[in-house]
Amino acid sequence: MITDYRRSKQLQKLVQKLGLPDNAPVNWLLLDLALTHPSISPRENYEQLEFIGDAVVRMAASELLFEIYPNSSVGEFAAIRSVLVSDRILAEVAKSYGLERYLLVSNSAAADTAGETSRLADAFEAMLGALYLSTHTLELIRSWLDPHFEQLAAEIRQDPARQNYKDALQEWTQAHYKILPEYRLKEETSPIHGDAHRFIAEVWLQDRQLGEGTGRSKKAAEQAAAKQAFAKIMSDK
Amino acid sequence: MITDYRRSKQLQKLVQKLGLPDNAPVNWLLLDLALTHPSISPRENYEQLEFIGDAVVRMAASELLFEIYPNSSVGEFAAIRSVLVSDRILAEVAKSYGLERYLLVSNSAAADTAGETSRLADAFEAMLGALYLSTHTLELIRSWLDPHFEQLAAEIRQDPARQNYKDALQEWTQAHYKILPEYRLKEETSPIHGDAHRFIAEVWLQDRQLGEGTGRSKKAAEQAAAKQAFAKIMSDK
Repeated sequence: MITDYRRSKQLQKLVQKLGLPDNAPVNWLLLDLALTHPSISPRENYEQLEFIGDAVVRMAASELLFEIYPNSSVGEFAAIRSVLVSDRILAEVAKSYGLERYLLVSNSAAADTAGETSRLADAFEAMLGALYLSTHTLELIRSWLDPHFEQLAAEIRQDPARQNYKDALQEWTQAHYKILPEYRLKEETSPIHGDAHRFIAEVWLQDRQLGEGTGRSKKAAEQAAAKQAFAKIMSDK
Repeated sequence: MITDYRRSKQLQKLVQKLGLPDNAPVNWLLLDLALTHPSISPRENYEQLEFIGDAVVRMAASELLFEIYPNSSVGEFAAIRSVLVSDRILAEVAKSYGLERYLLVSNSAAADTAGETSRLADAFEAMLGALYLSTHTLELIRSWLDPHFEQLAAEIRQDPARQNYKDALQEWTQAHYKILPEYRLKEETSPIHGDAHRFIAEVWLQDRQLGEGTGRSKKAAEQAAAKQAFAKIMSDK
């Protein structure tokens, strides 16, 4: 609850930081709730708004990708979106606005530094939920979120290593088959250190091999296999 | 592409069926695309709109649940939403409007009757994407989709067997730990047929037991275990 003048001023400052106009139709009660951690109140906290915000951020990312890359495949969209809506990225964007300074959290919960990324990502999603519900549009969101996502999307496209094909593939197999892909790794018998083909990974969905890839590390080989699988699925569709 | 007068009339009829006014600001080109299966055109089809629509339907479901059940826990929201946005339910709603009659699809793809549910669900999501992009709000969607979702949500709440706690738990562990929960089943040694506690299921997340449940069938025991796990997670948060 907005109990004092100081909290109210604080929230106004955050909205200014986002670059929104002073008369932006923000629902301040919801914004306050979005920035209240469950450790402060077991009932009046950001959880419900985070639930909405999770859908809001997927929407904002999807709409932007559709606008700026009209010729991309849905496979590419899905791979980029899975990075954009990840806790890591959302916490990064939240940090760029110093969101941790606006989040009401108990001292003991704040002491859990390992949980900081997910705490920030959760509060950030909740804030998106509050801003969405203020107008029932993305009007108070896309003006400041788009530039972050545009830059990140461009980076992800240019640097394939940042594209998380494993996540994208997993999201797809989950949605369509309710199961996870399985990775099988082989290490080449006579490895030369730093060899780009040292590891070979296969990715399987039940009894069907979806793809194969090689890499300098296990992770790189798995990503390469996931990328091949993903491209195959998207062209088969 | 809307190549003829007949297609255009057909789409207008569908929009009327949804109960939208004649002058509804529908983007007809997008709606036409939403109802074009990839078997008709490898490039000009519903895939991109389905990607948007997947986010739109989560949003519409989240917003509605938040409005009609303001006191529910996010656990309950997540469990209900995972049913609402499932292919099965989306295809059911699509069928109630006879969407299959508006979907352009090749004869060979249409012959795949096993794929009908996912085809209808995909086209339905794409239609939601097209309607959303027509106004950048849920205005052309919630007026007719809310009544379906409200009734379904009420049914799901009244009949716990329809609540898919396994799906909801899986969604949660995936989002937070990138892994799936594991179910371990035991059958009672001296089962009495039809005994409601015949099967005992435990659900584990790596080395941590999340919940336990019993049931008349393996599936029921797993659902009961998932429900306990879900309640625990949500109260721990």
